[in-house]
Amino acid sequence: MTRPSAPLRAIALSVLALLAISPALADEGMWLLNNFPSRTVAAKYGFAPDQAWLDETRLSAVRLAGGCSGSFVSPSGLVMTNYHCVVGCVQDLTTAERPVYSRGFTAKTTADEVQCPNVEINQLIEVTDVTPKVLDATRGKSGAAFADAQREAIATISKACATGPDVRCDVVNLYHGGQYDLYKYRRFQDVRLVFAPEYDTAFFGGDPDNFNFPRWNLDAAFLRVYQDGKPLVAPHHFRFSKAGAKEGELVFVAGHPGSTSRLNTVSELVYERDAAYPAMMMRMSELRGMLREFEKRGPEHKRYGESTRFFVENTIKSSKGQWDTLLDPAFMARKTADETAVREAVMANPELAAKYGDAWDKIAEAQQVKRRIGPRHAALEGRRPLLSTLFGHARRLVRAADELPLPNEKRLKEYGDAALPGLRQQLAARSPIFKDLEVEMLALSLTFMREQFGTDDPTVKSILGAKSPEELAKELVSGTTLEDPAVRMKLFEGGKAAIDASTDPMILFAKKLDTEARAVRRQYEADVEAVEDQYGEEVAQAWFAVRGKDTYPDATFTLRLTYGDVRGYEHDGRTVAPFTTLGGMFERATGADPYDLPQSWFAARDRLDLATPFNLVATTDILGGNSGSPMINRNREVVGLVFDGNIHSLGGEYWFDLSKNRTIAVHSAAMLEALGKVYGGQRIVDELTAAR
Amino acid sequence: MTRPSAPLRAIALSVLALLAISPALADEGMWLLNNFPSRTVAAKYGFAPDQAWLDETRLSAVRLAGGCSGSFVSPSGLVMTNYHCVVGCVQDLTTAERPVYSRGFTAKTTADEVQCPNVEINQLIEVTDVTPKVLDATRGKSGAAFADAQREAIATISKACATGPDVRCDVVNLYHGGQYDLYKYRRFQDVRLVFAPEYDTAFFGGDPDNFNFPRWNLDAAFLRVYQDGKPLVAPHHFRFSKAGAKEGELVFVAGHPGSTSRLNTVSELVYERDAAYPAMMMRMSELRGMLREFEKRGPEHKRYGESTRFFVENTIKSSKGQWDTLLDPAFMARKTADETAVREAVMANPELAAKYGDAWDKIAEAQQVKRRIGPRHAALEGRRPLLSTLFGHARRLVRAADELPLPNEKRLKEYGDAALPGLRQQLAARSPIFKDLEVEMLALSLTFMREQFGTDDPTVKSILGAKSPEELAKELVSGTTLEDPAVRMKLFEGGKAAIDASTDPMILFAKKLDTEARAVRRQYEADVEAVEDQYGEEVAQAWFAVRGKDTYPDATFTLRLTYGDVRGYEHDGRTVAPFTTLGGMFERATGADPYDLPQSWFAARDRLDLATPFNLVATTDILGGNSGSPMINRNREVVGLVFDGNIHSLGGEYWFDLSKNRTIAVHSAAMLEALGKVYGGQRIVDELTAAR
Repeated sequence: MTRPSAPLRAIALSVLALLAISPALADEGMWLLNNFPSRTVAAKYGFAPDQAWLDETRLSAVRLAGGCSGSFVSPSGLVMTNYHCVVGCVQDLTTAERPVYSRGFTAKTTADEVQCPNVEINQLIEVTDVTPKVLDATRGKSGAAFADAQREAIATISKACATGPDVRCDVVNLYHGGQYDLYKYRRFQDVRLVFAPEYDTAFFGGDPDNFNFPRWNLDAAFLRVYQDGKPLVAPHHFRFSKAGAKEGELVFVAGHPGSTSRLNTVSELVYERDAAYPAMMMRMSELRGMLREFEKRGPEHKRYGESTRFFVENTIKSSKGQWDTLLDPAFMARKTADETAVREAVMANPELAAKYGDAWDKIAEAQQVKRRIGPRHAALEGRRPLLSTLFGHARRLVRAADELPLPNEKRLKEYGDAALPGLRQQLAARSPIFKDLEVEMLALSLTFMREQFGTDDPTVKSILGAKSPEELAKELVSGTTLEDPAVRMKLFEGGKAAIDASTDPMILFAKKLDTEARAVRRQYEADVEAVEDQYGEEVAQAWFAVRGKDTYPDATFTLRLTYGDVRGYEHDGRTVAPFTTLGGMFERATGADPYDLPQSWFAARDRLDLATPFNLVATTDILGGNSGSPMINRNREVVGLVFDGNIHSLGGEYWFDLSKNRTIAVHSAAMLEALGKVYGGQRIVDELTAAR
Repeated sequence: MTRPSAPLRAIALSVLALLAISPALADEGMWLLNNFPSRTVAAKYGFAPDQAWLDETRLSAVRLAGGCSGSFVSPSGLVMTNYHCVVGCVQDLTTAERPVYSRGFTAKTTADEVQCPNVEINQLIEVTDVTPKVLDATRGKSGAAFADAQREAIATISKACATGPDVRCDVVNLYHGGQYDLYKYRRFQDVRLVFAPEYDTAFFGGDPDNFNFPRWNLDAAFLRVYQDGKPLVAPHHFRFSKAGAKEGELVFVAGHPGSTSRLNTVSELVYERDAAYPAMMMRMSELRGMLREFEKRGPEHKRYGESTRFFVENTIKSSKGQWDTLLDPAFMARKTADETAVREAVMANPELAAKYGDAWDKIAEAQQVKRRIGPRHAALEGRRPLLSTLFGHARRLVRAADELPLPNEKRLKEYGDAALPGLRQQLAARSPIFKDLEVEMLALSLTFMREQFGTDDPTVKSILGAKSPEELAKELVSGTTLEDPAVRMKLFEGGKAAIDASTDPMILFAKKLDTEARAVRRQYEADVEAVEDQYGEEVAQAWFAVRGKDTYPDATFTLRLTYGDVRGYEHDGRTVAPFTTLGGMFERATGADPYDLPQSWFAARDRLDLATPFNLVATTDILGGNSGSPMINRNREVVGLVFDGNIHSLGGEYWFDLSKNRTIAVHSAAMLEALGKVYGGQRIVDELTAAR
């Protein structure tokens, strides 16, 4: 399934090498809605979305702040997204009395809808160009000074925009520093679960079928946004198509691809290929093996282990596909040729040469720094440091105590005023934390760290002392009380004094690590990120000068629109048809994991129209973060729900191959059929299909 | 610790690109004992081993057929090797009453020495050049015909040499097909355990310290070879030096490095870097994570899991070091420049161009085939197929039934007459098999296979049917009786009729897989190995023609002699001294795994001379397979026991870097101190140090 692969994204970086867009690449493109190529679409498909169409689409599409996409699908705030985007909520809400995980969940009435502890939904209401403000702030600076100036400028702009906790403002870097836009969102934090199928239905076929097609997955869920305790009034929403998508039909996908590296320089790609992926893939593989065994300890272990493993396996499979692209000599040859051509054009023009001539080499030097300090940075400052939820809370609390007394623009960016509502929601979330799994994750991370830095490294010695990673992990996890949201909120509200007074072992541990973690981060920001940003801007300008600016920026978890048509493909000499049917799922259900279809389906089998299209593929250009995106037709009706790409789509991280790259979606008709006939969700069907 | 990394070796192949040997590389070289550069050694160290010295060394050094080295160290057949080379025997002999694994083992008298179920020792008694016979057989042939002719010629030569079960004859391919030698060994299969320390002493520091220096490991064990039920009379043996090695002293290591790739062509190195290592490292990492959890189930699980994991971790660490060398742009640039220079010289000479001009391209094409069929070959025909001991036995039995009725030269090579004593020993071995671990290993392998081939692959479908990998693994492992050596021997002796009649599920399963496994092997031999052999010979001849033949061949698990001196090195700006002491181990013993030193040492502490040198480093050129090699001085006295290389030695797979590459050995004085004062082994000390 499609989703940002956090561990890699935490390592991967972003600078530029625009691809030459040629006619052969039609359908490629994760386009901004304020710079959409409507004329190109009209020429190919005879339909040109106008600005009203685009604005309405922007307001109907939403983002799940955790890393997914979704859309309003009724005037009462109903939101459609993927099951895998809300599996955390499913875990949080599962109890012995309410087995959401194993049995699914259908709210019979609005009153039965249950709040998800940790879901935030964003609706994009305004986009403003702030490029001059940001570039003015950093002009003439480099290294740490560049990083500081950029951070301060962004914090100031965001704060001025964020007028209250229900407004979220992000300054977005596009074209690797070529453009900065201010994105203003409405922020919704009261989000309730309306429908989710069983885990085994959503992930039917599990890891073996993941990123494959044909496919039979009901990877769908419905949420509802509440405001002031009542369903949101949502005038902007997509209607639902009962007929769904047809072969050859023009479709659009509006969503939030997390991150692509299509514009990276060759030296950055080589770093990813030779340093980032090898380390990341080995870590993920080890985690996978650990979880596989962990699950055998008992039913709770199975539930937490299995769902964690599914994300790990998803990361492994998607990252492997991306890595394979980098390992393909043809790909690297094309990237190198493209970059060489632009550099030669730059050097042939004295003015361009003076401005941009050394940018690529500077970025290449930063890759060498990254090789040296990258592992330490990833271990101490990665997106999920130490793989532990409890440690994550401890770090948040320790840092908040230090950061919040500072002026807004001097803080680490995740503690800026604009970020506080999200921080507060995370700390207050009533998500259960499974301590047995925490111990294993933390022990594994500490083992990784010792392995990476060495037994005799001063940090390792100071952390472990005479303990083994397992002993320390057990001690910290069993001793902490941070699993209790009330404890966390009390420490948060208590500020620095409360943290200084705390004897919670996880807090003490986070404090112990923090000096070095901050130092490594600071060095990484100054010597890697600032260099890549500063010279990335130059490389971007150089490409614009040589090749023109008529293209789309790399994905940055901001709203994009992509177009294409419903179409199969050729693979290994076989033709893959664009649709599967509900009947096909029954044929594939052997009963053995992961092909064990829940009983609900067999009970409903006779009522179902087995010829109903189930999953489908289209040529739209999507990637991680697009999970949960609506697939709509020219009338802005939902014809499908994007949940994955095929195996060939994974190279989409680096390029787009129209002949094979396909989006995979749940067909709208299948959602209606399943909701109505399998899950007792006629109420939802009626809401989706009401005439309006 | 140093050892052939089986999974990779099963993938990695062997063709040629001789390095230019320059004076800067002195001390480099895994030299044949019949082509030793005595004059070079004399020029540098003032000592030239003569042929008598070399012959005596050859007859005193031995090989452990499982993948290690050793040496005779007394006239009564006492053999010194590493603990990690006999850890399988330690496992086999461990019972509740005889806790060899946790407490170590010291035989008080000869009568207390216990037979290892599955150890074979080989002593090299004769080397004959058979190059013309082999090359005549394959001349003018290619593909499958080449592979068949080569196999038949080798089988015929080996059979003529192997006059009885106590003689082992291997035809050895040197210089990637440039030379074929017949190696004739005395074969010993009655090998008994005399001494082993505790697992925790042998592996003190575990994975974190592995391949590091400074180091404190008693990775030593003593065996005794028996003949006709009595200790072997061994006139050829090394004496033991009480003083051991001194800094700066000339030392030699005689042993059996398993495999190097220093002479591989660039296209082969790229295949390893971009295809073989990524897949292998992910698999190994997953296995590691699985084992880490498996060990927590109970004490037996811990014992089997931990020792298996140590080998897995060893493979991961050593392979990562090798891979990092391939990922080093400077390394690849040098290899490419070297190869390009030779190819240009070949093309500039019309005669050489006509003979050898296309050899490199042919090998490069074979790498493309390898990319396509390599994963299938590795899954179905790898050195430890399906990671399962029980499946390994089943395959051996099924294939023996098919192969043994054929004439010797038509059989798969591991079923030739020359290989039968080893096969019989493996099948008859009374090594206990831990079924819980077997289930996990088999389930993991079947999952890998489904992942690699896909759920809809015909082989996968036919194997799994409606079962999950876990279900099938459980069914096969619990249903089979092949853990009983008597059952295996009955099936072996019963031949084809017995196998046809067997209803053992593992036998049935092995039969089911065998058709395709054989087909893949056949294709691999014809389209990959035969091409690499045929054109590897040409590349070798081309290098000889351009650069001369005064070099050593890549390692092939045959006896080699390397020389150097005891010397520290510089690392990260620090000077690493060449010795550690017994006292240093006590300082490092935190009590937490893997720094938990057994009680025996604390009990003996007051009696020990803590200044005794413990481990040491030298500049000798060793690699996997050299484990257990004696380090000797110019008087052919044991001054150390090789058990590892430092982290910089791992690149030794591909090149030798004198400034950093170091052999790690247990000092002879430390072995005597520990045997006498910690383990009650004065009898062994006396035997080692008796005047003779």
